[in-house]
Amino acid sequence: MNATIINIGDELLIGQVVNTNASTMARLLTAAGLEVVRTVVVGDNRQDIWDAVDRAMHCSDAVLVTGGLGPTKDDITKHLLCEYFGSELYENAEALDNVKRIFTARGYELTEVNRRQAWVPRCCQVLNNDLGTAPCMWFERDGHVLVSMAGVPFEMEWLMHNRVLPRLQQHFSMGAILNKNILVQGIGESFLSDLIEPWELALPSFIRLAYLPIAGMVKLRLTARGNDVAELQASVSKAVAELYPSAGKYIVGEDCETLPELVAHKLTTMGCTLATAESCTGGTIASRLTALAGASAYYKGGIVAYSNEVKECALGVRHETLATHGAVSEETVREMVEGVRSRLDSDYAIATTGIAGPTGGTPDKPVGTVWVAVCSRTAIVTQLMHHGDRRQQTIDRTVNQAYAMLIRLLCQKD
Amino acid sequence: MNATIINIGDELLIGQVVNTNASTMARLLTAAGLEVVRTVVVGDNRQDIWDAVDRAMHCSDAVLVTGGLGPTKDDITKHLLCEYFGSELYENAEALDNVKRIFTARGYELTEVNRRQAWVPRCCQVLNNDLGTAPCMWFERDGHVLVSMAGVPFEMEWLMHNRVLPRLQQHFSMGAILNKNILVQGIGESFLSDLIEPWELALPSFIRLAYLPIAGMVKLRLTARGNDVAELQASVSKAVAELYPSAGKYIVGEDCETLPELVAHKLTTMGCTLATAESCTGGTIASRLTALAGASAYYKGGIVAYSNEVKECALGVRHETLATHGAVSEETVREMVEGVRSRLDSDYAIATTGIAGPTGGTPDKPVGTVWVAVCSRTAIVTQLMHHGDRRQQTIDRTVNQAYAMLIRLLCQKD
Repeated sequence: MNATIINIGDELLIGQVVNTNASTMARLLTAAGLEVVRTVVVGDNRQDIWDAVDRAMHCSDAVLVTGGLGPTKDDITKHLLCEYFGSELYENAEALDNVKRIFTARGYELTEVNRRQAWVPRCCQVLNNDLGTAPCMWFERDGHVLVSMAGVPFEMEWLMHNRVLPRLQQHFSMGAILNKNILVQGIGESFLSDLIEPWELALPSFIRLAYLPIAGMVKLRLTARGNDVAELQASVSKAVAELYPSAGKYIVGEDCETLPELVAHKLTTMGCTLATAESCTGGTIASRLTALAGASAYYKGGIVAYSNEVKECALGVRHETLATHGAVSEETVREMVEGVRSRLDSDYAIATTGIAGPTGGTPDKPVGTVWVAVCSRTAIVTQLMHHGDRRQQTIDRTVNQAYAMLIRLLCQKD
Repeated sequence: MNATIINIGDELLIGQVVNTNASTMARLLTAAGLEVVRTVVVGDNRQDIWDAVDRAMHCSDAVLVTGGLGPTKDDITKHLLCEYFGSELYENAEALDNVKRIFTARGYELTEVNRRQAWVPRCCQVLNNDLGTAPCMWFERDGHVLVSMAGVPFEMEWLMHNRVLPRLQQHFSMGAILNKNILVQGIGESFLSDLIEPWELALPSFIRLAYLPIAGMVKLRLTARGNDVAELQASVSKAVAELYPSAGKYIVGEDCETLPELVAHKLTTMGCTLATAESCTGGTIASRLTALAGASAYYKGGIVAYSNEVKECALGVRHETLATHGAVSEETVREMVEGVRSRLDSDYAIATTGIAGPTGGTPDKPVGTVWVAVCSRTAIVTQLMHHGDRRQQTIDRTVNQAYAMLIRLLCQKD
């Protein structure tokens, strides 16, 4: 089964907004077993939308469309789809109830313009959008399916999970699919590939492997297809177990999409707390953890110790340490991580110090030189890295390195 | 002049990578005066690339292609373009020099595979890629232009600025274009639109206005086209000056793309320092500032005071204040901002405390309730906001609100 994604919106074509919908949808469709063959972005323009829809309906089994469903004049998707499928608009009772429910909850009065949101083409099936007023519409023609969804990211994602994907799997009798993520860190993609080649070649034919490299780590994704979920589960578990003898020391976790999720899950489960002391990563380690709901259960706080002065006054790094070894040194990062753990009285701590660049490098410590430390109440681990001369890459890789080191330390505790 | 963007890469179609290239390119092309009418993503698949290229060459004046230019077998863009334009590959001396230069600089030996990067279709013009080994290729046919670039974001962006955009403007005799950004905060888009309608209607016809709303603020972009840059400059300056009487109190700055850039510019120019104390924004204010090179010139550091304990021990918020008024209160945010400013001895400080959600709300202080404070050595400003129940939206809006409040305080000092 293949799929085309069509995202509609002028804001995407002027580059005002990054099209995260396309990647979210592609990720979810791929995980559900559909192959995305094309993503198209067009503006709120009749001819362009029509062409994109018509072409996609000829080439793809499933066409997923977002955007252009607002109640204002420049949102034309619904009218166009109505015409494309040779139908007529009518007021759908279920969609109207949903619009009323949302307006009541927000304490707004329902206007005629908003009521129009409940009008849909007679030929489509309405999939209720619990989070918004624009109904999700499911069209079929000659075995091809077109689904039109709101372009608001959180509405789209909810609809994909709760309405669209289950129905697509049923419609196309796609059987069972099982995805398993394995997070690997501390080895480059090509070395990993060499290392696990015998294992990969021995995988059963119904299990496929994908390498997804992300900022200093690699996510391995196993995708198994078949008819029986329990059998797939057993086969995948066996395959994963067989990976450990060769690659176990690089595996930091399973079943999570990202390292912050894994950190959050482990610390919450263990009932332990974390503090951070960041120099070159400038708050990014904290920011990615606190972006996830529930962070207050384990994250006590942190110090962004960007200047030496703050390393001394807020973390207790000794002046002599900074003077003798420099801010980017093992000695400093040790005092940072111990300082923040004891001052914030947490079970675990992370610290980073380095030269993100583009300036500040020396022959001894070129741009991209970074020290990371993690510690518990009894142990401390430090590591030196060289990340090259691109600032954001250095920050991103350091952040992932730090999470991975912490996870390894947490696992020792298990 | 209209343009189509084609991004090639399997990693985009499985949703592994967010397609930031498309938005960066769209933003740059729009600012240069081209209208982007379509963005297409296809995989490393011959037929799909061919179809996308062929269609775009018929519909658009300019076709911008990224990706598929690596030296390995799955990168097929160059061979396909060679065939599409009926040409043959040859080793280009300038491209080879560039490959050699880059390999020498990185200390790698040049292999036969890497040398292949210097082979290009005879019919194209090579635009040198200073940052990478894949040459940028410029093709022309029947007045239409196709440019093929590396998909690595920083190479693409460098090529767009330094090679592609200047040449496109020359090729299409596009005349002068001038963009001016005005950052507005503290008023919703529709209210702003009403407020400045008379001004907008009075704009000369060669100046266009766009509203670009972003996380609690609006970026107004004026785009002027003509033949004489000095004249455009004068007209745009006049238009901007005329905007101040009606909307001046909401304008936080000009000429920057983002608020962190503006904060960085102002503080660096003034030679002043900043410290941050973040609760609900969890390090995001710090992280977005330190993502920009040169942050150490003005940013001393900050405290991520996620728990009450850290608010007390690291910021000196009084226990009675937290007990009496709660963590999310004007009293607490005042003590946070004063605490971090005095403890880190900075000229200015920012503090945030709120309920990002989804849990933690009360009838009194529902999810989305946030207090922000900014202060100098002599003044302090606080503000209460209600951002609704979406965690990331609350964080993003709070962060922008805090930057805007700081900029206003910095301007008073001017």
